[in-house]
Amino acid sequence: MKDYTKKSKEMGEVKLFWTWSSPYAQRIAWALKLKGVEYETMYEDLANKSRLLLEYNPVHKKVPVLLHNGTPICESLVILEYIDETWNTTARLLPEDPFARANARFWAKFSDDQVLPSAFHAYVSQGVEQEKAKDHTLQKLDIVEKQLTGKKFFSGETLGFLDLVFGWIAVYLDIVEETSGIKILDKERFPLISAWKENISCIPVIQETWPDREKLIDKYRHMRQYFISTAAVKNGKAS
Amino acid sequence: MKDYTKKSKEMGEVKLFWTWSSPYAQRIAWALKLKGVEYETMYEDLANKSRLLLEYNPVHKKVPVLLHNGTPICESLVILEYIDETWNTTARLLPEDPFARANARFWAKFSDDQVLPSAFHAYVSQGVEQEKAKDHTLQKLDIVEKQLTGKKFFSGETLGFLDLVFGWIAVYLDIVEETSGIKILDKERFPLISAWKENISCIPVIQETWPDREKLIDKYRHMRQYFISTAAVKNGKAS
Repeated sequence: MKDYTKKSKEMGEVKLFWTWSSPYAQRIAWALKLKGVEYETMYEDLANKSRLLLEYNPVHKKVPVLLHNGTPICESLVILEYIDETWNTTARLLPEDPFARANARFWAKFSDDQVLPSAFHAYVSQGVEQEKAKDHTLQKLDIVEKQLTGKKFFSGETLGFLDLVFGWIAVYLDIVEETSGIKILDKERFPLISAWKENISCIPVIQETWPDREKLIDKYRHMRQYFISTAAVKNGKAS
Repeated sequence: MKDYTKKSKEMGEVKLFWTWSSPYAQRIAWALKLKGVEYETMYEDLANKSRLLLEYNPVHKKVPVLLHNGTPICESLVILEYIDETWNTTARLLPEDPFARANARFWAKFSDDQVLPSAFHAYVSQGVEQEKAKDHTLQKLDIVEKQLTGKKFFSGETLGFLDLVFGWIAVYLDIVEETSGIKILDKERFPLISAWKENISCIPVIQETWPDREKLIDKYRHMRQYFISTAAVKNGKAS
């Protein structure tokens, strides 16, 4: 990849408020690296959020937040489009054609409104509820699978916007499976998503920023325990 | 407004699958009219969806769907951006500046993820549940109110993307109040949203396409009855 650092420095100061275990934050780190944007990482402990995070994202109080020359941008899909429009001279994430752009936005919304919440539900539940959430996730993934017909990446022959959006399937689904004891990404049912996972994990920028598997498993195991015990207390199943 | 019809005809055939009582579909009709795009209205009876709607929006099976030269585009926010990018020579809906665009997308997402579902919940519930949903809606609207500080429209001095997105507050909230017996848009609590409602209702394109109040009330009264009885059956409160 060319060195775009000089150009990106002229564009001012960039900070990314994130935590390394968030799939939403991860896609922003990928986009900035793909664009060659130099940025400062502001690590957030979500159990003890910083004053700055609450100031910059007062509505949702969540990572990721991109701070560009002191101006905050929130919501990961919004940030991805901002990055693409601001560092717009090369490595475009979204295609140029309006219909292809609409298509990418449609599936990004499908990822975040339908597939990711469903997989999250399977991750933080147990028993019958977990089975239902798993089935729901599989049905959503059946739809995603079809989008890869005849393609190496969601965007076609090269990595793009939708690959970053669906990147959580490549990195985090495996961790969800490992920590919650369910199998979701079966190679026979999802041959195209499985092949895509291999393709995306070979991209240098993605490889370089892939979170440590053991650390992720440890973190996700603890988070699951926390969510399940919180739900049990809420439902009156524990004191 | 200038006559952009000739130019829009050169852009091919446009059809809008919609129903007149849907706030999501209404924003698309507004956008097409603002752009001067000639289109054919394909009215959908949501109790008996057409074969074409199911073919063009197989994932969500919902209106609105925009069909442009035979290609379907789904999800109202995605369609709005498509319209803005395709008929791009005039009356831009989104601002040019990347930060202002990100800001518009952030609040559009807030409308559709947070405020609209909350108001819908208040509309289709009763008793304590309705009171809770109403309070939730008021809190979300407090946040929206602040966005209008010092502005005539959400986009500034002229109508834009965010005004079309939040347009449901101007047209449908009144109908929700009337049919579900709750007051949400109190002028003392929401002076800026109330003033904006007056401003947007004076725009000719909005005025021309404002749905008939009595017809809307009748439709929304029946829909509420349907949702409440369906929920009662689901909860085992009715046979």
